[in-house]
Amino acid sequence: MKILFIQTGGTIDKDYPKQTKGYAFEITEPAVKQILGKINPSFEYEIISLLRKDSMDLTVKDKKKIFETCVEANTDKIIITHGTDTMIETAKFLTEVEKKTIILTGAFKPEKFTNSDADFNIGVAVGALNVLKNGVYIAINGRVYRYDEVKRDKMTGKFISV
Amino acid sequence: MKILFIQTGGTIDKDYPKQTKGYAFEITEPAVKQILGKINPSFEYEIISLLRKDSMDLTVKDKKKIFETCVEANTDKIIITHGTDTMIETAKFLTEVEKKTIILTGAFKPEKFTNSDADFNIGVAVGALNVLKNGVYIAINGRVYRYDEVKRDKMTGKFISV
Amino acid sequence: MKILFIQTGGTIDKDYPKQTKGYAFEITEPAVKQILGKINPSFEYEIISLLRKDSMDLTVKDKKKIFETCVEANTDKIIITHGTDTMIETAKFLTEVEKKTIILTGAFKPEKFTNSDADFNIGVAVGALNVLKNGVYIAINGRVYRYDEVKRDKMTGKFISV
Amino acid sequence: MKILFIQTGGTIDKDYPKQTKGYAFEITEPAVKQILGKINPSFEYEIISLLRKDSMDLTVKDKKKIFETCVEANTDKIIITHGTDTMIETAKFLTEVEKKTIILTGAFKPEKFTNSDADFNIGVAVGALNVLKNGVYIAINGRVYRYDEVKRDKMTGKFISV
Repeated sequence: MKILFIQTGGTIDKDYPKQTKGYAFEITEPAVKQILGKINPSFEYEIISLLRKDSMDLTVKDKKKIFETCVEANTDKIIITHGTDTMIETAKFLTEVEKKTIILTGAFKPEKFTNSDADFNIGVAVGALNVLKNGVYIAINGRVYRYDEVKRDKMTGKFISV
Repeated sequence: MKILFIQTGGTIDKDYPKQTKGYAFEITEPAVKQILGKINPSFEYEIISLLRKDSMDLTVKDKKKIFETCVEANTDKIIITHGTDTMIETAKFLTEVEKKTIILTGAFKPEKFTNSDADFNIGVAVGALNVLKNGVYIAINGRVYRYDEVKRDKMTGKFISV
Repeated sequence: MKILFIQTGGTIDKDYPKQTKGYAFEITEPAVKQILGKINPSFEYEIISLLRKDSMDLTVKDKKKIFETCVEANTDKIIITHGTDTMIETAKFLTEVEKKTIILTGAFKPEKFTNSDADFNIGVAVGALNVLKNGVYIAINGRVYRYDEVKRDKMTGKFISV
Repeated sequence: MKILFIQTGGTIDKDYPKQTKGYAFEITEPAVKQILGKINPSFEYEIISLLRKDSMDLTVKDKKKIFETCVEANTDKIIITHGTDTMIETAKFLTEVEKKTIILTGAFKPEKFTNSDADFNIGVAVGALNVLKNGVYIAINGRVYRYDEVKRDKMTGKFISV
């Protein structure tokens, strides 16, 4: 089993700037690197740092880049880390990638936080990737949804079944 | 989706004793509680603290208790946290539980460690449970194996395909 | 020994917002509460959550509030957690508080980060408070300076001796 | 300011063994290295990994080694990390080291635990070392005691004033 991890940015990768005046975060190294460093994985993997953006800032051009990276991947198992705000839109954009299993995931707290959900969420995506057939999925809050079976509750921010 | 988590003990739940002379650990609260506290789960769950033992200390009576708890569970989705040393043996012991999906998992570093693999491993089990059909499985090192498709490398301690 | 901890805000108390679009932090509970929860202190203490501001946003009115809280404190040992950007200015503002030992400290990474310097910095302030005589001090980067013996390197952001 | 850190072992440096059957810890790298890696210190330092023992296992020969390392140190500021069980005895053993300030400290939870007191305790020792005059001290539970002003409560394990 080989997994390609594609970094696009989002909360999962946010870090505190080294020197700062004020309140802003910045997006740095892929959190996946940190997480896989703890687990001695029994699978091959590659990490591509494609984009480092908040998902509200992703453009159509960005989404095309993600699409092409999926198409060109030399494995059929792909996990994309992504901001939660537009994760479902990007999932829908990728449905024409053929013969691949793509899971989008992310986090509500940056991986660098002591109470982050990042390790768990990446785990959910990897666990599902062991079993799922081709298609585009979202793994979040402990659930795995097909891209067209999930929406976001506008009040709570939680992902729920359609 | 409802998941029953059954604590049996093992590394994942080890903590440092409050007052101690010497080198010993003790097994305390189910780590799963801590982990689910971070993730705002979109599934129902229940945690049963059944046993708090190193997996080398599990007796046949203990395994029968685990078996019965699985049989009596009011959900068909079960995750058992377990020490890695005898995880495969316990998995084999549970194969006659009917109409349930059971995943055994654990950790190589206690959940209380900053570099623990516990969050990720529980994630892998939950992710696989979203998709798997009935049967007994082991989730470890990022892979999900059927109980009869995995063995442990005696040199490295890593779980590998048969 | 009784210590009064006064929260004014700054990086040490920054948290990731529960629901967010974009890059902003917010200042929440005093980090000191978390830190003292780990250490079983052999001293009495009280925590006042006075202000929750980035130190660039502190007004003269805010500084007067800090001054008065120090004057009215029912102990002579005070630790103020504060953003690093204007810590030295606030220290100078407090020099007329009489018969008290006041130490300002903070952090370069929020306490909620796995690689935070918050625990250590609060420790430095507490350690110095065990020994110091009356006056206003800054504890940062492992050093304890009198308010008039320290400046900030504009390039590196590090606190250094005058 | 230059600080020499001497590792002797104890809880602060305990880690979970890579491969294990059973309950044992092992003492590994000096925790101080990890801690100082987070804080961008404004002081020089050196770390000597002298002993890696539980403090119940320290022999007279070991204590002589500690004594000599203090005598030969090329700085007058020394922090010794040490198991809590015999910390006071070792402190008394070092009282004849001349013209040096020596602080013994340690932790009740290993530095590798998410809820460790290690960072704070090393901070307390460093903070006190900024101010203290020559002598032998113990820094623990947020207090700094002269070697002959502290005892351990046999019931609670807490360090208290004589």
